[in-house]
Amino acid sequence: MKSVHQRVSEERLREDITANAEFGAVPTDQGHGRTVLTGTDANRLAREYLVDRLDAAGLDVRVDAVGNVTGRWVPEGVDPTVRAVACGSHLDSVPEGGIFDGVLGVYSGLEAVRALQGADADLDRPIEVVCFTEEEGARFSNGVLGSSVASGKRSVEDALALEDDAGVSLEAALSDIGFRGTGRLDASAWDSWLELHVEQGERLRDAGTAVGIVSAITGTIRCAVEIEGEANHSGSTTMAERTDALTAASELVLEVERATNDVVAEEGETVVGTVGSLDVWPNAINVVPGRAELGIDVRDVEYGSMERIVERVRRCLSTLEAERGVETTLERPYDIAPSAMSDRCTAALRDAAAATDVDALTLHSGAGHDTMHVASVTDAGLLFAPSRGGFSHSPREWTDWSSCATATRVLTAGLARLARE
Amino acid sequence: MKSVHQRVSEERLREDITANAEFGAVPTDQGHGRTVLTGTDANRLAREYLVDRLDAAGLDVRVDAVGNVTGRWVPEGVDPTVRAVACGSHLDSVPEGGIFDGVLGVYSGLEAVRALQGADADLDRPIEVVCFTEEEGARFSNGVLGSSVASGKRSVEDALALEDDAGVSLEAALSDIGFRGTGRLDASAWDSWLELHVEQGERLRDAGTAVGIVSAITGTIRCAVEIEGEANHSGSTTMAERTDALTAASELVLEVERATNDVVAEEGETVVGTVGSLDVWPNAINVVPGRAELGIDVRDVEYGSMERIVERVRRCLSTLEAERGVETTLERPYDIAPSAMSDRCTAALRDAAAATDVDALTLHSGAGHDTMHVASVTDAGLLFAPSRGGFSHSPREWTDWSSCATATRVLTAGLARLARE
Repeated sequence: MKSVHQRVSEERLREDITANAEFGAVPTDQGHGRTVLTGTDANRLAREYLVDRLDAAGLDVRVDAVGNVTGRWVPEGVDPTVRAVACGSHLDSVPEGGIFDGVLGVYSGLEAVRALQGADADLDRPIEVVCFTEEEGARFSNGVLGSSVASGKRSVEDALALEDDAGVSLEAALSDIGFRGTGRLDASAWDSWLELHVEQGERLRDAGTAVGIVSAITGTIRCAVEIEGEANHSGSTTMAERTDALTAASELVLEVERATNDVVAEEGETVVGTVGSLDVWPNAINVVPGRAELGIDVRDVEYGSMERIVERVRRCLSTLEAERGVETTLERPYDIAPSAMSDRCTAALRDAAAATDVDALTLHSGAGHDTMHVASVTDAGLLFAPSRGGFSHSPREWTDWSSCATATRVLTAGLARLARE
Repeated sequence: MKSVHQRVSEERLREDITANAEFGAVPTDQGHGRTVLTGTDANRLAREYLVDRLDAAGLDVRVDAVGNVTGRWVPEGVDPTVRAVACGSHLDSVPEGGIFDGVLGVYSGLEAVRALQGADADLDRPIEVVCFTEEEGARFSNGVLGSSVASGKRSVEDALALEDDAGVSLEAALSDIGFRGTGRLDASAWDSWLELHVEQGERLRDAGTAVGIVSAITGTIRCAVEIEGEANHSGSTTMAERTDALTAASELVLEVERATNDVVAEEGETVVGTVGSLDVWPNAINVVPGRAELGIDVRDVEYGSMERIVERVRRCLSTLEAERGVETTLERPYDIAPSAMSDRCTAALRDAAAATDVDALTLHSGAGHDTMHVASVTDAGLLFAPSRGGFSHSPREWTDWSSCATATRVLTAGLARLARE
């Protein structure tokens, strides 16, 4: 008789991901793109297809008040009041995102259940397959919205009241597509949680390993910096008379890079610091810039390392005020602590990889995931499948089908382990 | 009997400038703003008021094919076929510009004629008061449009075919406001030209002098630089894996400043270098910037100094390509040589200042003016009145009425000198 993980079907998994890729598909000659924003028609089609597939596999489907979808399977003979093992991810995308980001996590979960059903596995716990609402935050939020509600970080009411740029509320958008359900999915009720996601980097391919077992998800501190100089005529204002906001901003951009590299040199490559956005006013070729706004994103598995970089940013701003005469402000609108995965879940994944004869690399995740929130209320683990070229949030994102299947086998064996305890 | 310059009326001048300030007036609590773009209703009102005032002073008004307005006065007994002495400036403004920029030059010219008429001055040449079309270039062009046609740099046909962002041609816009005239104003037919303009800087106020006599108008080289890196996830891309277009752009911004300061240290403060515009793609806080576009503006009275700075920009781009792996391009869409004022005209202005007992500072102009084009076809001079606080292209622009009148006295005496030769 085949073991559980041998019942994972690459064909079935590919069929689901390929079918899902049609919803919101974007014409491109650079790969396979899709735009699936929360509450849009593409999102409705993706959700309806998922519900059909969960139904077809005999799972009991529920939709909560913020649109989180759960398919629940209680294996024969299992006490339904026992805490479930859950897995999943999300089906929404960034604009022109790839076809695996989130989707692999949802359909690998369903495929795992199908494999466990086919193997008639001996389990002690129900298994739930979850699709969280608005992980990407491309329409209503900063992201990881559904899991923030499921972990009790945000109330259902607050979430439903969120509005997109056009003033449409999440509640209205979900009602519109028929996915404004009832109740609140409660992640703290789960025994444990696993998420399979594409890596969005190249460490697995560089190391030549098939899966990555995440030890921690980095925290993120975001800073919004404003630099106020004095807009002036670029021809009639001598160099000595200027208070140029852009030259000051440029010093800050380079200091963020330098400070981050200093921390990397001491503590390793998990820390990253980025000035991703810079806006200049009036942004005219013949005017000395009078104002600049920068968005800084700092991440690491150690909160202290992030703080060190932010401290360097503060010191740089003081220097710029003293030496360049600009006025500056710094705000921290987003501050999420690093999130360690549970030993129990990473051990289950390590054992699962060994049992399925798959090489696994232990690494951290620099990208945020719903698992961050789930990890704050129950034991959680995160598994990565390799990304070709490391492309992410792009139609060029790609994970080989065989890699998807291999990682799904590890996920399946991991779920079986957790559900047997 | 009063001398010529004593007949200049601050009251009349103020009346005209104040009346003109109503056309396109912008509500602001920061001074007095106006938006008068070529061919708009505000521009029509400003032009119609000018024509009325020229008429009232007995000048013969003509409007050429590109909307340049000329009021011509032939003093009694003067041979009308003799080359005229001309003066003037422009009535259009940048969006939310000030009430003196250009306007002072036009109405001081008219006031000079009125003063010369009142003094029954002994002159040998006709005098023309000119309002050039679209000096600011805020709607149809890069600026100094009417004078580029009057000096033969650009054909009437090319100018009329220019379109604004909405696809409206200059020809249609001028027809619309009734200022699509005939023929071409020919600056090369003038004996000489003087323009009075606000300084747009603080050198006169710093030196405590009432007027500035311009020795040269700086040339301008503009560079459009593109830097191509690789957009990537700010969390999952290690520092070592990045090709960040914004950090590269920041190095260039600082190199432009450093290179310019180096040339200033060797050759003086006439040279200026500015990165006025910087656009970043995708400009999202969680994405490593993949592309940056910069607009660089370099000016000096010496072409070679500008070239040295552009050469430093080129070398910096090569270094960025080698050290940061970005790809770069540099274009020079705008390249105007420095323009020296004629000795005859600056001498006339110096003598005029002495005769009217006004302190004069010799300086250069870092801002471009219609006089640049006129100077290429006849003798030209440029006179500055002091700007309070140096504000320019802003409602905060201000020149005291007494300063306007003082400078107009010098202009009047200068015109009288040139018209007597």
